[in-house]
Amino acid sequence: MLDVTSLKNKQIYLLESPKDKLAKEHFEIKVKNIRELKENEILVETKYISIDAANRAWMQGRTYRDQVLPGDVMGGYALGKVIASKNDNFTEGEYVEGDLGWQNYAIKNENELIKTIITEDENLHMSVLGITGKTAYFGLKLAELKAGETVLISAAAGAVGNVAGQIAKIKGCNVVGITSSQEKADWLINQIGFDAVVNYKSENFYKEIRSACPNKVDVYFDNVGGSIFETVLFAMNNYGRIICCGAISQYDQATPQSGPRGVPGIIVTKRLTLKGFIVMDFDDQKEIAEQELKQWLKDGKIIAAEDILEGIENTPEGLIGLLNGKNKGKRLIKI
Amino acid sequence: MLDVTSLKNKQIYLLESPKDKLAKEHFEIKVKNIRELKENEILVETKYISIDAANRAWMQGRTYRDQVLPGDVMGGYALGKVIASKNDNFTEGEYVEGDLGWQNYAIKNENELIKTIITEDENLHMSVLGITGKTAYFGLKLAELKAGETVLISAAAGAVGNVAGQIAKIKGCNVVGITSSQEKADWLINQIGFDAVVNYKSENFYKEIRSACPNKVDVYFDNVGGSIFETVLFAMNNYGRIICCGAISQYDQATPQSGPRGVPGIIVTKRLTLKGFIVMDFDDQKEIAEQELKQWLKDGKIIAAEDILEGIENTPEGLIGLLNGKNKGKRLIKI
Repeated sequence: MLDVTSLKNKQIYLLESPKDKLAKEHFEIKVKNIRELKENEILVETKYISIDAANRAWMQGRTYRDQVLPGDVMGGYALGKVIASKNDNFTEGEYVEGDLGWQNYAIKNENELIKTIITEDENLHMSVLGITGKTAYFGLKLAELKAGETVLISAAAGAVGNVAGQIAKIKGCNVVGITSSQEKADWLINQIGFDAVVNYKSENFYKEIRSACPNKVDVYFDNVGGSIFETVLFAMNNYGRIICCGAISQYDQATPQSGPRGVPGIIVTKRLTLKGFIVMDFDDQKEIAEQELKQWLKDGKIIAAEDILEGIENTPEGLIGLLNGKNKGKRLIKI
Repeated sequence: MLDVTSLKNKQIYLLESPKDKLAKEHFEIKVKNIRELKENEILVETKYISIDAANRAWMQGRTYRDQVLPGDVMGGYALGKVIASKNDNFTEGEYVEGDLGWQNYAIKNENELIKTIITEDENLHMSVLGITGKTAYFGLKLAELKAGETVLISAAAGAVGNVAGQIAKIKGCNVVGITSSQEKADWLINQIGFDAVVNYKSENFYKEIRSACPNKVDVYFDNVGGSIFETVLFAMNNYGRIICCGAISQYDQATPQSGPRGVPGIIVTKRLTLKGFIVMDFDDQKEIAEQELKQWLKDGKIIAAEDILEGIENTPEGLIGLLNGKNKGKRLIKI
């Protein structure tokens, strides 16, 4: 039987709420001993931590979860393995997912964990087969894609964006990405299979969208918000759909800026539909999504684009880099 | 046989595109003779002109129709009667609707007119049974109302807003209006049947919304855009729907301001759906809507709130007043 109190837990705490851009100074690392488990508690060893733009939003205030405040272990969705349990429903060796936080070990209650069946490499369950892939999958499901439509995707080289692009290609759409560098544009076209990519830093961003989307935009999969969202609004087709998946451009600053011009006027004149969603709302359909994504992986219709760093101490840098567009594909921290 | 050239046509022209707030100086009135009809043309005598906030938007640029430019007869949707016709499909005495413009007579082609069967007072066909009532009807149809939900409506004392409120009451909802004066608030509650009304000029506008909507807002029927839209976003329930019907707050100025803060961030975290629409898109269902609205009128479940001015020369003032919130109910000009 494992003596849990012998385990040293490396933890990353939020030291200070960032007022503006997130920096390493906002975090501190501590090493603490694990305490004895109480009745019904479960001890989980972290395997892979998911780095997500939403992590930064959690520091701004209440979202779909409580705010992460100074003095808290930084929140983070992760894959882990049960290594000790005083709960009859959880057994050592089982894989679980949940907000394990940025730490090597987490003591959790039953309702904070979801059991996961691992059938492929662990990392795939945190990228294409995990929340990332399912976010792309359910977001596009809301868009009700039709073959031949033009789908524009922002943060296209990001975790969700690249998978959304690959799924839209499977559905027979013309897929255009928005990204921040020529290197990522080349990667998206040559490795991931996008039809065209536009750089939002270009002076002629709007014109480049229009030239990459000669039939205008039927579906915009938005991961960024802000001025990119505003520019795309003007390139939408009548009856177009905008899937609101995240607003990464608005997270890493003091308070969200004013919103996009054209809301709601252009929504009316172009008869647009905007839909916000959070992947957890689709939990009842997640097995179907996983099956389909797994099949696409096996058939080579989707490739898993991952960007894996190692070691709990690299989580702050992992998130800061992601907020600055350093990642290609799904960024994970392997513990 | 009518000698059409004997008719004097009083017309209101746009003299200058307004840079900021619309004023009487932006219009001029001219009287011209009607010319002989060419083959296939139809001469229509205007009966009622609809005054709509959208009229002002037409001066800003292309919307769902061409911009109204200086030198054009001002555009305006109207009900008229055919008084002469060189078109085999249109006969003298038939009622028609269309963009007849701000004038006593309009020469039109077949594809510019829609025949209308008048079964009630003419004015009702331009208010509850017309585009106004159908806009409220189809907008709420998009909202998929459920009994017991809280529906918040801006420009509630306006043409569309008051009908939307009455329909939402029929559907068993808790109906809250937003308006600009105590007088209009009293009218909405005592005459129209709203459950509560909030004044957007109040210093505690957000708090007043929350107190009038203790269960938050499930459906927001937006006619105004701008800062009211922004404030309401923060009072929405998860999975709420926002029906984007117009943006009157953005029409009477130089260029649309920046958009509402919280777009798209709050759309994501609250999983909101926003739907823009234009009533013309529902032409295939308009008979059903008219039947149902007529029945509600007959059953006394809806009252027709109309605000009728007389004479073509009063159209500019009619629109300017409407943009400044002077009307209660549907504003029409009787010719």
